[in-house]
Formats: sequence, structure tokens, C-alpha cells
Amino acid sequence: MNQFMTKDFLLTTQTAKTLYHDYASKMPIIDYHCHVNPKEIYDNVRYTNISQLWLSGDHYKWRIMRLNGVDEYYITGGASDKEKFLKFAEALPKAIGNPMYHWCHLELKTYFDYEGVLNKDTAEEVWEHTEKVLAGDDMGVRDIIRKSRVTFIGTTDDPCDSLEYHKLLAEDDTFETVVAPSFRPDKALAFNASFWQDYISALGKSAGMEINSFADLKKALSVRIEYFDKNGCRASDHGMNYVVYNEVSDEECERIFALAKSGSKISESELEAVQTSLVLHCAGEYKKHGWVMQIHYNCLRNPNTAMFNKLGPDTGFDCIGPRNCSGELAKLLDTMYNNDAMPRLVLYSLDSGDNAFIDTLAGSFQQAGYPGTLQHGSAWWFNDTKNGMREQMTTLASLGLLGNFIGMLTDSRSFLSYTRHEYFRRILCQLIGEWVENGEYPADIEYLGQTVQNISYNNAKNFFGTEV
Amino acid sequence: MNQFMTKDFLLTTQTAKTLYHDYASKMPIIDYHCHVNPKEIYDNVRYTNISQLWLSGDHYKWRIMRLNGVDEYYITGGASDKEKFLKFAEALPKAIGNPMYHWCHLELKTYFDYEGVLNKDTAEEVWEHTEKVLAGDDMGVRDIIRKSRVTFIGTTDDPCDSLEYHKLLAEDDTFETVVAPSFRPDKALAFNASFWQDYISALGKSAGMEINSFADLKKALSVRIEYFDKNGCRASDHGMNYVVYNEVSDEECERIFALAKSGSKISESELEAVQTSLVLHCAGEYKKHGWVMQIHYNCLRNPNTAMFNKLGPDTGFDCIGPRNCSGELAKLLDTMYNNDAMPRLVLYSLDSGDNAFIDTLAGSFQQAGYPGTLQHGSAWWFNDTKNGMREQMTTLASLGLLGNFIGMLTDSRSFLSYTRHEYFRRILCQLIGEWVENGEYPADIEYLGQTVQNISYNNAKNFFGTEV
Amino acid sequence: MNQFMTKDFLLTTQTAKTLYHDYASKMPIIDYHCHVNPKEIYDNVRYTNISQLWLSGDHYKWRIMRLNGVDEYYITGGASDKEKFLKFAEALPKAIGNPMYHWCHLELKTYFDYEGVLNKDTAEEVWEHTEKVLAGDDMGVRDIIRKSRVTFIGTTDDPCDSLEYHKLLAEDDTFETVVAPSFRPDKALAFNASFWQDYISALGKSAGMEINSFADLKKALSVRIEYFDKNGCRASDHGMNYVVYNEVSDEECERIFALAKSGSKISESELEAVQTSLVLHCAGEYKKHGWVMQIHYNCLRNPNTAMFNKLGPDTGFDCIGPRNCSGELAKLLDTMYNNDAMPRLVLYSLDSGDNAFIDTLAGSFQQAGYPGTLQHGSAWWFNDTKNGMREQMTTLASLGLLGNFIGMLTDSRSFLSYTRHEYFRRILCQLIGEWVENGEYPADIEYLGQTVQNISYNNAKNFFGTEV
Repeated sequence: MNQFMTKDFLLTTQTAKTLYHDYASKMPIIDYHCHVNPKEIYDNVRYTNISQLWLSGDHYKWRIMRLNGVDEYYITGGASDKEKFLKFAEALPKAIGNPMYHWCHLELKTYFDYEGVLNKDTAEEVWEHTEKVLAGDDMGVRDIIRKSRVTFIGTTDDPCDSLEYHKLLAEDDTFETVVAPSFRPDKALAFNASFWQDYISALGKSAGMEINSFADLKKALSVRIEYFDKNGCRASDHGMNYVVYNEVSDEECERIFALAKSGSKISESELEAVQTSLVLHCAGEYKKHGWVMQIHYNCLRNPNTAMFNKLGPDTGFDCIGPRNCSGELAKLLDTMYNNDAMPRLVLYSLDSGDNAFIDTLAGSFQQAGYPGTLQHGSAWWFNDTKNGMREQMTTLASLGLLGNFIGMLTDSRSFLSYTRHEYFRRILCQLIGEWVENGEYPADIEYLGQTVQNISYNNAKNFFGTEV
Repeated sequence: MNQFMTKDFLLTTQTAKTLYHDYASKMPIIDYHCHVNPKEIYDNVRYTNISQLWLSGDHYKWRIMRLNGVDEYYITGGASDKEKFLKFAEALPKAIGNPMYHWCHLELKTYFDYEGVLNKDTAEEVWEHTEKVLAGDDMGVRDIIRKSRVTFIGTTDDPCDSLEYHKLLAEDDTFETVVAPSFRPDKALAFNASFWQDYISALGKSAGMEINSFADLKKALSVRIEYFDKNGCRASDHGMNYVVYNEVSDEECERIFALAKSGSKISESELEAVQTSLVLHCAGEYKKHGWVMQIHYNCLRNPNTAMFNKLGPDTGFDCIGPRNCSGELAKLLDTMYNNDAMPRLVLYSLDSGDNAFIDTLAGSFQQAGYPGTLQHGSAWWFNDTKNGMREQMTTLASLGLLGNFIGMLTDSRSFLSYTRHEYFRRILCQLIGEWVENGEYPADIEYLGQTVQNISYNNAKNFFGTEV
Repeated sequence: MNQFMTKDFLLTTQTAKTLYHDYASKMPIIDYHCHVNPKEIYDNVRYTNISQLWLSGDHYKWRIMRLNGVDEYYITGGASDKEKFLKFAEALPKAIGNPMYHWCHLELKTYFDYEGVLNKDTAEEVWEHTEKVLAGDDMGVRDIIRKSRVTFIGTTDDPCDSLEYHKLLAEDDTFETVVAPSFRPDKALAFNASFWQDYISALGKSAGMEINSFADLKKALSVRIEYFDKNGCRASDHGMNYVVYNEVSDEECERIFALAKSGSKISESELEAVQTSLVLHCAGEYKKHGWVMQIHYNCLRNPNTAMFNKLGPDTGFDCIGPRNCSGELAKLLDTMYNNDAMPRLVLYSLDSGDNAFIDTLAGSFQQAGYPGTLQHGSAWWFNDTKNGMREQMTTLASLGLLGNFIGMLTDSRSFLSYTRHEYFRRILCQLIGEWVENGEYPADIEYLGQTVQNISYNNAKNFFGTEV
């Protein structure tokens, strides 16, 4: 029997152990898509207790607590940091088979040298131990990033953002990690949202123009893409409930824009029309700048209205939103490809039932000259589990070329999440180890070592052109 | 190599063996959802041969025979009990990898001490052996239930049911197992069914009133819920082809009701409207009485018209009915939650592709104060297989808290099916054993033993408030 | 650790090894559905290099190259055979976990006695070695077929086809393998296709009549079915993007036919109506002749318009086309069954998410007198992988009778693909071996040996009534 979470955690074959310890673990980290705050990096923020790190913003952990019947008072409410932590510690042991159990213990081990198990009996001990460690000299955000050997961080940013902290970080010679913005124009595309009119004004302002037409909107986005590009942006990100495709004329788009601008709600089909046009426009711009485009879809956001009204978005109430939009996605790519306006692309669906479809679609829209211009993104959000990652990689391998995969990202709001790269690399090495030891692939350790290093780091480095 | 179905059946690790033999197997059974007939329990019915037990009503077995090309004469037709059994025995060995193969042999072993294998060569022997055992003193239905250590049985009952046998059983001090009704109002919601008008009259009669309006219908259901509650009901059950959500005004519901009452067919959207309103009404009533609500959906019923006309419903011709009604289900829950009218809930989809969606949805609608108020039900019907159960539990564990899972039910029409709880518990212990021995969870046997006992029994006991 | 691809490739238990080596591998091959050209068999074509065999028509391999960023010049363009092969050899090692890696090496081993590994370092060696072998006496297409012990080949043929080469082969006493046509009337059903008007003329010509009405079209198809039947046809094949069901009157079909014949585009619903009628008509005809009907669905064809315009169909740009047409498929079968016009049927969906649905549907439409009249076809195309086949068989076994499964086909355009039967048989034996050694099925090797021989060969032989 293996002990819990030893150095060979998740590695059961000799090949897997060799691949992980001698190859994968040696690589630095590129975290090309996450939600950390660049200001916190610039300020080298420090946290005084584990609750601030773990429970102040991590809605994954809030879900665990809610699933254990914990009152919102101890989750997002007025309870003290310590009370919240105790409630979480009580719930955690029930999370057997949940990646949260692994992530927490990997983080305790990696950043706090805590080798024990967290539960209600050890909660006090963990609280005190982590408090002491956090008070040390080397637990500022920059220290954590350095220790984690992160060479590149891709944040997620609104087109209106001034990128002030990205600039300051770029100028700061004392911090070697590249912190690049990513362009996420979702708000500009949400014509029916209550904030849209204000947002369009703000976007215009940030672009130094007025937005009075659909053409203006496109232009403003182009201006901001240019601005982001000058400030080191290498990627964009589009979060979609589902992928839309409804091609209409420019005139029709102008009519719909005017309608929305006048304050009227537009129909679903009108919304899909303007979104299609804007997504295609942006894609062309990304291509011009050599950016990567990311599309995240099939998410059901804010299904619980009462809790949304109380706590707002991104508070742990979203869920998987299965919807068959395969035809729309195919048409979107077809149009980009036909127009020679398809950037390097990463597709992520929150519905893992789309895995095989995405992998076959990827085979249909590759562009010559670069290996893997259309990628199936790593298992996303709810799929970011041992089985979810195994399935994503097994399907990708079955239908594509695993050797060209750009690998893991954290998608996280926390600076301790870099251990998820370790988690991913162990799963990757274990998977390949199984194949090799089962006689399904030659035991050419050097080639395989290069392959896991590519998937862990080099492929992403080349794909995002990060030049780190 | 393991021999076939030894005492360590399905248990390959020491941890799994310990968890099963020292913990899980020691627990009694709560069979909170099944289709056995309370009259047969009250009458302590006896069967004279294995065909009566196995083949008189079990449409799972009929499917196996049909898949082997057996003529209906030997399935539901005029052939003798023994002829039918011989045909079944001939088909069974082909069911390699099918849970039916395991269920049959678990039942032969548990209730008949038959350690052999059933096939066409042994069919005579099994026929005679089981006939002899059935002739013994201790093979009445009550004896089987007692031997199986079943403390609670939740039957499935129509709102019009007098619950006569539930009452008689409650008054019978010689039988300690609680036999509680469950409220299944599907017929009242089937406005377009040929039986609906008659049914509505019968429902009114049972509620001591006339049903002349939609409001009357709601009231009659409330009256019967009250009656069921007084007679020990702890749960309801809604069987839906797919989950509907179409919210309209009360006036509109009255208009649709009047239309249907007058004998007109109503449109699909009208049907969805009245069903939405009735499901929400019932949910509120269940909440008031502290009941559990169960929703079973994504079933394609009676696709084979010729056989339906010949044999009627529930004769083994239904199949999985994949349909994306995730948005409707989310809206239904949202409305219940908003109205503070959400009872404890169990969701089951016949399409296992919905597993991950349900698990994430569960995280979005938990209620504070009780661990796990919204549950993903155990792998249902066609999914009630080794892999189906493993997948349901692995996904639930990945996305929720396995420790709070209420576990297994038989959903069966047969009194020998209690061995399926054993089947489930072995699979559960094996799954946890794999995780532990793979170093993915600490080997804290005491805590894990408590966990499997909770999932096997205690969680359901608390969830249904059965007070057994 | 197992070496790469030894004689026990994919077989890890003793039971699996025994079942494969002593039973499965001894059986000849029935390749009941493929796309090889009968003329090439009649001519006993020879290939001068491995590129002609592997890269001249195999769009699976083209995808691998595109996924590696290879320019179309080296795929379908003007590069030399050898240049193309070198590009492929360079891409192949990245295909870890992809069946292509296994297929290639199985073919090199089986037909060329090459025991090494193909990569860019060995490409020259492999090129030369295979060139030498191909120059030998026994590498004509007929030799390859003979060596592979193929007793029956079911090609795929247009209703207009003269079947000239099938006739010549039937008359050729020197070649013992039966080469039977299969009837694939997809073009006749494609009312909106640009080729349809011409096609209908050609079809009429081949049937010796003019097609001026919908009734004529049905009649012409019947005439050609009769003709195919006289020439040894045992099966038909319908390739559908998705399964349609829209029943309308004969008069309505005539109206739609006239509309299309006049050159007008018909609506999607009109198209579905005539297709429904024609599919049902054909099914009845197949039934009369004792043929097998195959339905392949959920395919998204030619999504990449630019590449379609450049290279045409079947060039490696199709992908999985998920679409929920379960209701339509059920209705189609229901109508056939009701009309007593349901032939033996094989259903294949390109979306493996349909597996469980198909398996349960199969249980609802079996016909008495023959074991397994409605079959779930072997994992198709993109699913034809180790995991895809395991999943298809595990699901089939869980929900049906694995013992009655008709097993593997290549669906291939290449004469070297017969090794995929070996691949399938190894996976089958491994799966059964795991169950047996895990105590889930008795270790009755003789019965199990018979079972794997049935699934490998006998069941297909009986199902297609091939009389070989």
C-alpha cells in the first residue's frame, strides 16, 4: 500500500517515477491563463493567515462548505477568519475522491512543509503552523511565485484596463517573472446586460473615441488590442455560455447595435448575430498580432438567482451548462479559416462530453507551418480532476498528437495553486508510464522525457511565443 | 486469479476487504425506493418456484431473453414456468459483463446457498434445488426481508391509494420492518393521457372533493399528501420523460386545465406549463412535511408501439432518453429555492452523460443546516451496473462530498434484489480501497469505516428521517 | 515492464493470453464493411513503396500530418512518395496513445516482418526494407488478403454500380475469398445535392427505366437491390449526418420529389420527409432479401469549406457530429417493427455518447428467432481506438448480451488494415480476461474460447448469412 501523498504520489510505475522526477518536475512553470491580480504581485502582498489565502476568494472551497450544510455566515459572511477555517477543516475529510483534498494537502506540504492531514482534530495545529510560516520573510506573493519557478503569468483583463500594474511590473528589474495581460472582451459583447451601455462609454473612453456605431465598437476593440499588444499581451480569452454562429450583413449589425444603444433589449438571434461578427473581428485582430485566442464555453452561470442577488457572480454557484453547439463552433472556425483570419486557438468546453468532438474538430482546422495551431485546452474548472485530466489527455492522445499538447494552466485566483501544475505533471507521467509499461509505446525514456518536458513547459512557451 | 464470486467478490485490495467485511456488510438495509407490493409483504407471500420469483415480473430478465432471440411465448406468453426458466438459463451465460449475471448468482448464493453456476447444463439442478428451498419454512416474503436485515422499505404509490396494507403492516407488531408509502403523482400530471379524466375523478374521490379547477387539483394533491404523511410517507417520486419548466400565470393554468377537462388535447407547451406549476406546488408541500422529493428523468418510455399494444407499459421496452433539459432543471430548482419551497431532493437521470452536470448543479442549490440537502441519486436502472455505479460515485466524489452520499436503493419489483445493496457496497469499498492504497487518501480505517457505514446506511436514515 | 508490442501485446492476464492465442487468433476474418476497391483485388494490384500503401488514400494518416503542422504539399500535394513518407515518420512518434501508432507497427510487423520502431531516424531503413518486401512475389493485394485469412469482404457500392469486378471475382476460381457488394444509396437520398439530378438519371438508366416520380425512385432502388442481391450482396449501408424521421403521405412525397426534380431546393423538413420514406422503403426491401441494414450516423462532414473546395470529400476533414436524434431513431425502428419490415440491423453512431442509448434501444426492438437481430456496431471511425472499443464492448456487455456481438470490421480503404481485427481481438480477450481473473465470470475457458471465436468470426458469419 502507498502512504498518503508521498514523493511518488500518483506515480505507480518506474517509468512514471522516472519521467516525473527526472524530467517533468525539473521544468519551470508557464501559467498562461489565470485570474490573479497583478496589483497583488506588484505590491508583493502578504497574508496573515490561511483563511485569507484559502477562503477569502476561492469559490471551489465555498462549494465544499455548502455541500456540507455550512451556513453562509461561515462562508462569505461575518464569521472570523478562524471560524471559517474550522468549518472548512471539518468538511474537507468528506471530500474523498475530490481534487480539493489533494490540492489542499499539496499546498500545505509545498508552501508550509506541513506533512500531516487536515481535519477538525488538526485544524488548530494547522492554523497556528501556517500563521507562523506566513509571518516569515519569504511568504510574500512574489516569493511564492519565485519558489514555484513561474516564468510567465497570463492574467485576465478587461479591454478598458489601463494595465498600470503590468507596466510597473515590466519596468521592475527586481522581479524576473513575466506578468502579461490577456484580453477578455466579454463585457463588450453582452449587449443585453444592464451594464452594457455604461461599459461601451468606458470602452470608448479607454480607446480615445466615441462609440456610436457597430463599426466604432470594432474599431475601439482594435485600438485596445493594439494597446494590449504593446503592453506584452500574448493571448485573449472569450468566455461564452455557448458558442454562437449567426452571420448577418454589416448593415444588420449596425441596426442591432443602434437598437441596443437606444436601450432596447435585442432578441437572442440578434445578440448571436452581433456576437458572431465581433468574435470574428477580434479573431482577425489576434491573428494579425500573433496572439493566441482562447474560447471557454458550455457554462451555466448564476443559476441560483437568490444567491446571485445576495453575493453576485463568481461566488461558487455556476455549473456545467451542456449544450450542443458543435455546429456553431465548426462554422465559426470555418469562417475564420476561409478568411485566413484564424489565430492560434485553444478550445475548452466545460462539458467533458465535448472532448472527443473538440479533438476531431482540431484535426479539421490545423494550419500548416506550426505543430498544433488548434489546441484542445486542458481539462477546465470542474473537469480539472485526476479523472478529468486523464480523460482529456487520453481522448486527445487517441484522436490527436499528445506530443504537441500545450498542457496545464491554473485558471486560479490563488497564488498557491501552482501545485496544480505538479498535479497535472504527475497525472501525465503516470498515463504515459502505464502505456509504456503495458507495451503500448517503446520505453525510449529520453524521447518520452523530452515529450513530458514539452507538454509541461516548452510547447506552451512556443505556443504563446513568450520568449521567456 | 480470483475464483468466481468468492467472499471477496469485487474486492481486490486489503483496504477494500476490511472496509467491506468489517464495516459495510455489518449494516442493515434501508431500501428507500422500490416497487414491491405491500400486500405481498402483509400476506407473507410464498413462491413455489424460481420462475415466479425471477421471471413473472422482472423485465430486466425479459430483455436478456429477447436479446437472445427468445420468442415472447417463453417470456410473457403461455409457456410453463419451467420452460421459461430453461430459456432464461440458456441466455444467461452470454451476459458476460452484465450485472444480471452477478445479480442472479448473488441471489442463488444468498437465498438458496447455491454455489454453482447457472447455465443450460445446470438449469434442471437449479430448478429442483430452488424448488426445494422455496418449500422450506423460512422463504416467505417477510422471511426474506428479515434475513436481508431490511429496516425500512419505501414503496411507490399512487396518490389515490388507500394505503390499506401500509396501515395493516404498521399495526402488525410481529413485523418490525417499516414499510412506508412514497407519493408518486405522475398520473395526475399526465393531462393528455387517455386515463387522465377518469384519474382526476378518482383522485377527487380519494380526497373527498370534486376537482373542477386547477386550484382544486392542487388542493386534492395537498389533501392526499397530508393523508400519506399521516400514514408514514417520507418521500415522493416524480417520473418524467424529461424535466419541464414553463412558468405561466395561475389564470393560464386554469384555462389549460379547463381545456383538458373538456376532453381536448393540450399542446406540449401547455402541458409543460401545468406540469411546472404542479411540480412546484407539490415540492412546496413536501417541504412543509419534511419529505424527500425524488425526480427521475430522461427516459424514453414505450418506444415499441406494437409491443406496447400487446403487453402494456413496464414490460422491458423502455430505453434511455437522452435530452438536454439542464436549463429547465436549473430553473425549476431556482424557483423552489427562491420561494423557500425546496425540499430535500434526489435527482436521477437515466442518461449517465448528465452525471457531472447534476453533481455541479447540486453544489449550486444546497441549503444550510444539513449536509447534502440536494443529492445525486445512485446510478439508476440501466446505469445500475458495476461501471455505472463506479462512474456515478467517482463523478460525485470529484465534484461533491462523497461522505454525504445517501447511497443505494433497489428500484426493484423483487424481494430478492436486496443483494444489490451488497453489490453496491462492494463497489463502494473497492473504489475507496483503490484510492487509499494508491496514496490518494490517508489509510485511516476507522474514519473510512464510518464513511462507508454512513453511505451504506446512516446517511439515508438521517436523510429520510426514518427513525428506524 | 512489457516490451513494446510483443506477442502478448495488450494481453496482461493469463486468461487473456490463452483466449487470444488459443482461440481468437485461430479464426479467419470476415471484413463485412470496408471501402476497398474490388478492381484492385481482381487486378491483384501491387504497390512499389510504403507511401502508396499508407499515404496515397489514408486520410487518418493525413490528419496526423496536419496535426503536426505539415504543409499540404507533403500530404496531398506534389511532393514525392518518399518525401511524404519522411514527413509522416517524423510526426508518428508524437502519436503516443493514438491507435495509428499501433496500427502502423502492427502492419510493419505482420506484413513486413519489421520489428523496429518507425521514427525520423529509422524512416530511411523502413522505406528501403518495405520497398524490398513489396518487390517480392507474395505482396499482391490477393496475397495480402490470403495471408490475412480473410474469407469474406463486404465492399461499399453505389446502386448504379455495374458490379463488374464483383462478378469477375465470383467467376474466378483461383481466388477463394468472397468479395460481396454492399448497397449504399446515400446519393439517391441527397435531394439537395448539386449532383442529385444527374444521379437520378444515372440511377434510372442502371435500372432500365426513367425516374419521373417518387414512386419511380422507389422502384428503381428496388430494381437495383434485386440486382445487387443476384450478385451476392448481403448488406446495405446508410451514411447519415443524423437520423431523420418525418412521416408524410405518399402524395406529399411526390410533391417534394417534383419540386426537387424541377431544380428547386427543398426545405430541411421536406428533405427529412422524403428521406424517411426512402429509408423505410429500402428497409422493407432489405428485409425481403434477408439482407443486413447498417446505419452510420452523427457525422459532421466537410466542415472546412476551403479544404473541401480544394480536395473534395473524404480527405480527412470530417469530424464527430454530436446531435441528439435518439427520438427519431426510435421512431424509425418503431415504424419498421410495426410494419413487419425491419431487417437485421447494425447501428453505429460516431458520437460515443450514444453508446448506452443504442444498447438500450437494441433491447427494445429485438426480433424473435435469431439471437441479436439489432446490433450495436463496433466502435466506429474516430472511436476505433483501444479505449473506444473497450467502452463500446463494456457498455454493450452491461446492457446487452456480449456473447451475441458480431464484432469487428475495418471500414478501411487499405489492404493492410486487417491487423485491426487482431487489435480488436486482443482488446476483447483482455477485457474478458480481466473480468474472469477478477472473479466476475467463471473461468470456463472452453466456453469463453467459444465466445471469443463467435465474436471474432462465427456471429458475423451467421449474421450476414455469408455461407463461407
